Amino acid sequence: MDSNTIALLTDFGLHDWFVGVMKGVMLSINPGASVVDISHAVPRHDVGAASFALMASYRYLPAGSVAVVVVDPGVGTERPILCARSAGRIFVAPDNGIIAGLLELEGHTTLVSVENDTYFLKPVSATFHGRDIFAPVAAHLSLGLDPRKLGPEVTDYRRLEIPSPQVRSSSVVGSVRWIDSFGNLITDYPAGLLDELEERWGRDLSVGSMEKGERHSLRIVACYESVEPGGLLAIRGSSGYLEISARERSAAEILGIQVGDGLTLQQSADL
Amino acid sequence: MDSNTIALLTDFGLHDWFVGVMKGVMLSINPGASVVDISHAVPRHDVGAASFALMASYRYLPAGSVAVVVVDPGVGTERPILCARSAGRIFVAPDNGIIAGLLELEGHTTLVSVENDTYFLKPVSATFHGRDIFAPVAAHLSLGLDPRKLGPEVTDYRRLEIPSPQVRSSSVVGSVRWIDSFGNLITDYPAGLLDELEERWGRDLSVGSMEKGERHSLRIVACYESVEPGGLLAIRGSSGYLEISARERSAAEILGIQVGDGLTLQQSADL
Amino acid sequence: MDSNTIALLTDFGLHDWFVGVMKGVMLSINPGASVVDISHAVPRHDVGAASFALMASYRYLPAGSVAVVVVDPGVGTERPILCARSAGRIFVAPDNGIIAGLLELEGHTTLVSVENDTYFLKPVSATFHGRDIFAPVAAHLSLGLDPRKLGPEVTDYRRLEIPSPQVRSSSVVGSVRWIDSFGNLITDYPAGLLDELEERWGRDLSVGSMEKGERHSLRIVACYESVEPGGLLAIRGSSGYLEISARERSAAEILGIQVGDGLTLQQSADL
Repeated sequence: MDSNTIALLTDFGLHDWFVGVMKGVMLSINPGASVVDISHAVPRHDVGAASFALMASYRYLPAGSVAVVVVDPGVGTERPILCARSAGRIFVAPDNGIIAGLLELEGHTTLVSVENDTYFLKPVSATFHGRDIFAPVAAHLSLGLDPRKLGPEVTDYRRLEIPSPQVRSSSVVGSVRWIDSFGNLITDYPAGLLDELEERWGRDLSVGSMEKGERHSLRIVACYESVEPGGLLAIRGSSGYLEISARERSAAEILGIQVGDGLTLQQSADL
Repeated sequence: MDSNTIALLTDFGLHDWFVGVMKGVMLSINPGASVVDISHAVPRHDVGAASFALMASYRYLPAGSVAVVVVDPGVGTERPILCARSAGRIFVAPDNGIIAGLLELEGHTTLVSVENDTYFLKPVSATFHGRDIFAPVAAHLSLGLDPRKLGPEVTDYRRLEIPSPQVRSSSVVGSVRWIDSFGNLITDYPAGLLDELEERWGRDLSVGSMEKGERHSLRIVACYESVEPGGLLAIRGSSGYLEISARERSAAEILGIQVGDGLTLQQSADL
Repeated sequence: MDSNTIALLTDFGLHDWFVGVMKGVMLSINPGASVVDISHAVPRHDVGAASFALMASYRYLPAGSVAVVVVDPGVGTERPILCARSAGRIFVAPDNGIIAGLLELEGHTTLVSVENDTYFLKPVSATFHGRDIFAPVAAHLSLGLDPRKLGPEVTDYRRLEIPSPQVRSSSVVGSVRWIDSFGNLITDYPAGLLDELEERWGRDLSVGSMEKGERHSLRIVACYESVEPGGLLAIRGSSGYLEISARERSAAEILGIQVGDGLTLQQSADL
């Protein structure tokens, strides 16, 4: 099943013409493409955050669509670019770990190193492979190009060093992988952990960052309105992860937390 | 007349993948849809501002298009979701007053409560009905689904408590319903009031917020260049409402005004 | 060769419904249009910055596409609106110098003053020609309308007064035309100047703003990773101009530079 959808996930922002010219290049090659912006607000060069945003979103892209992820601090160096068929879609991204989590979870049927400059815009600039390589390659893929035409198959790829969340007897330790524009903290605890915690410790817990000593009360709930305005809560997030929110406030602000910070959850008695 | 256009108005911002996955879901169901962003910068949970933005924009959406409005502080509770045929278009929104102004002005030929989960993405999350209900329902509607398939017809809906502007003998009292990114104040005075005021009081008026004592001179004009740079002016706004602007400056900053603040216009002698 | 692509470049921002209603108007007229946002973050009323963004992006728009540039401090006055066939595309913009650089570089086969209100949305507001004139005119052009139907041919147009960069014996003097969201300074020096400077002075130069005395070391490189993190570098920018960057930092912040500021490059010995 094919799709004309090309999805973009970058750290380019929307201030400049960078995303616009990528779309211009893609529509020059495939005038029927539907281009969808997943986000262009990945924190600059934050491969881990981009990887997480991809994991939270790829299942919702049409089957057969092409997803392009350009968070690429190594642009202009010899870092390879990968193209993978995985999860019924095609992914194009620098080989810097950004699609490693996806490939580990979903496997792949094809994985190549993108090297065939027939499909590049020339001359290729040193600083904007999004326009000169990623955009035209994605457009050709959306027209049905076989990824194996792009370069040699490869068997390995770079992985990210991100510690997994740990469930210990008296606490669970994880980290904040994304903070949304409402200040909700999206953690790497799987959402299913909530049931386990509630059974073990009840609905009233405490939460604190690894970086700061202070701890705060938080309640496991099924919807935001189950706590008073301003109250902290833990909820099954829509992306499949445990999220920590404050009703009608920013949990990030209350807890003084940044993306990447560690978090511990404990029984409320520990407060 | 049908259209493949789906228009989105939310308070989700563009920082996260939320709008992107809504589009992914919609294109999975209707690959030919053209998705238009009205705005994703409605102030968080501000149903009144979203309602106003919808009133200012719906006339410009293609006939037959589907407009989805998701500003939804009650997500996850039992608040109903409405689908209405009105003004030659189809609207989907939470039943929190957000489309009440539209329905009062334009009437409707169909009004249903969206309950048929055949058209939902499952499992439905507690926190992201935009992705799981609004997006798939809108995509099915854009393919021609009869709104009456979505659930039972209803006869009533929630309204917003927003005071109407009042014209008194010595002043007119209204409120600021939107501040645009240039700092222009879009009020709820109908633009036609300008002619009436000019006839009664002349072109030179004074303006002040209800919240602050300070008053400022302002001139009724037909284009920005009719006052000196920095000067305050009242003009027939493009959305059909009276707007207060400052030439090449922010009127919001000069007057120290927030969305929702009250405003009075008086004869200049009152300054 | 025709295209259904319409590209938008404005200073409207994405906060309000302005860009959304322009798209609604365009899709009402041409339901098959693909609308691409080049940028809506041109600094307000900055015709020079918009002109530069257009020069950096137009080559990447599909052949036959229509580009609409609305940075228009004179909206509502009698300033003309131009429509030009140039560089295999069609451009619509206020006659305020914004497309003068393009026309000088590429020439044109047609240049008309847009006056035929058959193609306008009526009534035409005094403040939002983007919606009432530019959007519907662009949609009709994207359907194949001959630009000469829009109004009389004209032979002259307004130009911008922007000093050209100057190469002197001991320094080169130019200006910063755009600062991207990474803080990279895009100058008006052509990128080819780098080879000439390297031959004359070597790879190590100094840079400073005309507005401040302070000078900083900078190295001519082929990719960002050739300097240490935080180091300033001069690189062949992807838009064809010399760019000044700092590896993993903001060059604009390090140099204290604004759009429009003058820059001098000198031999490093001058530091």
